[in-house]
Amino acid sequence: MSEPIHTFTTRRRVEFADTDMAGIIHFSRYFVYMETAEHELLNAIGTSVHATVDGVAIGWPRLRASCEFLRPVRFEDELEITVTVRRKGRRSMTWGFQIRHQDEAVARGELVTVCCELRPGKPPRSIPIPDAIASRIAEQPPDELAVE
Amino acid sequence: MSEPIHTFTTRRRVEFADTDMAGIIHFSRYFVYMETAEHELLNAIGTSVHATVDGVAIGWPRLRASCEFLRPVRFEDELEITVTVRRKGRRSMTWGFQIRHQDEAVARGELVTVCCELRPGKPPRSIPIPDAIASRIAEQPPDELAVE
Amino acid sequence: MSEPIHTFTTRRRVEFADTDMAGIIHFSRYFVYMETAEHELLNAIGTSVHATVDGVAIGWPRLRASCEFLRPVRFEDELEITVTVRRKGRRSMTWGFQIRHQDEAVARGELVTVCCELRPGKPPRSIPIPDAIASRIAEQPPDELAVE
Amino acid sequence: MSEPIHTFTTRRRVEFADTDMAGIIHFSRYFVYMETAEHELLNAIGTSVHATVDGVAIGWPRLRASCEFLRPVRFEDELEITVTVRRKGRRSMTWGFQIRHQDEAVARGELVTVCCELRPGKPPRSIPIPDAIASRIAEQPPDELAVE
Repeated sequence: MSEPIHTFTTRRRVEFADTDMAGIIHFSRYFVYMETAEHELLNAIGTSVHATVDGVAIGWPRLRASCEFLRPVRFEDELEITVTVRRKGRRSMTWGFQIRHQDEAVARGELVTVCCELRPGKPPRSIPIPDAIASRIAEQPPDELAVE
Repeated sequence: MSEPIHTFTTRRRVEFADTDMAGIIHFSRYFVYMETAEHELLNAIGTSVHATVDGVAIGWPRLRASCEFLRPVRFEDELEITVTVRRKGRRSMTWGFQIRHQDEAVARGELVTVCCELRPGKPPRSIPIPDAIASRIAEQPPDELAVE
Repeated sequence: MSEPIHTFTTRRRVEFADTDMAGIIHFSRYFVYMETAEHELLNAIGTSVHATVDGVAIGWPRLRASCEFLRPVRFEDELEITVTVRRKGRRSMTWGFQIRHQDEAVARGELVTVCCELRPGKPPRSIPIPDAIASRIAEQPPDELAVE
Repeated sequence: MSEPIHTFTTRRRVEFADTDMAGIIHFSRYFVYMETAEHELLNAIGTSVHATVDGVAIGWPRLRASCEFLRPVRFEDELEITVTVRRKGRRSMTWGFQIRHQDEAVARGELVTVCCELRPGKPPRSIPIPDAIASRIAEQPPDELAVE
């Protein structure tokens, strides 16, 4: 069994449909980029954002989302997106995101998600993060935080 | 009970997030505009694209979609979208769409949808359009078709 | 000349394409809803988010965006979106947003935008908000803030 | 100099934000998938959908788009998208698209685009496809067409 992970990096390219008439990526698309990077991290530890764990259908509704936009990003720019585990709670996760283009930070954001049992026809109910998932994720040690 | 309807008109304004770096509406958004106009027509006859009719959960998966783009449309342009019943089949509907800006046609399109029973955990199964819906919709009489 | 405004309310309905497989509105769409409400406020005071004022092309790039998600919102829910002027700076605006469904708060968010001169082929340059716009907007008086 | 190309294949994974409340990819997103595959083909021959060729700013506005939806596609499905040159005109291109999941066709579509000179503040004007681009693209020979 490999070590729990606290950081994950992926890449994607800005698509034409992601841009707006200002000639740059529309800011709402950063939230999709962040979410998909989170989902890829979950895949990397062998689960999915919608998975069944020990017979329970698990989902991760979003509680809060935020993003700062540091530099304009354009069509066909190749972005590097790094997810870090900012906080691992008993029932919730705080994911931090760094988005870079050519080694320059272009945006940084955060998603707070809560682990829920999904029940057909009922609202999601928060539950403790199952061990099978929690044991595979670790908070990022402070001494590895990038100085910016 | 009012007459069955064969045409329905709605309006919407082009939003900033609908535009792309070419300064005009991104073509994929026309399909959302068309679909939402279809859903408003269904509301106008007292149903919804996802409704329970006689105890059966009904949905309308798309079979085909097409659109011609006649003129560029810009941010904050106010569009008029007209849906017509091009063909009412036993199990499927063909909707035609005219999109106009200031009385000029800017796009026209078509959606072919099929009436299905939605069953949890199973693929949708096509069914005859329930009478409660079919009786409220009529094919557009040819002599009312606009000459363009 | 009417009074400067500090609050503006609009309505919109959740479209099918705004939903995701969890059966609720995708959180990234709230940012589009917020932005479009901001643009409608700008229209209400006689300007646009992309306008030429005193011969200068003005735009409002986003600096920061955040949103809290309080309750799930579903297809065809009718939302009421209220924009308030949280802070009017010399060069920037902080807009607050309250999103309600049937009188219940479902989300609240914030956008920080900066007034910029748009110059073809160059990056946007921040400028003081032109008087023609600034004089039409007022910060929300604290005693009118809703107690939540 | 390599041979002109008549076919190009890329892959992408269905993202959460691409799905809708029916639990499958929203049909409007197929048009984005098709367009991005077209853009990657243009990159593969050394150009871009927005490029300057011999001092002329070139763009490719869409004239028509259509798609047939053959099978439902779900979150995290890995799709293979093949673009073929269906017709190379003097001023326009017709691109065909095959979208497959696990070797099964799930959708097929077409985009008709027209080569235009982009002039600031004026509508795009159609021009003959520059040789630098046209010479790198070939129509798909009929005997290589897949029998379906």
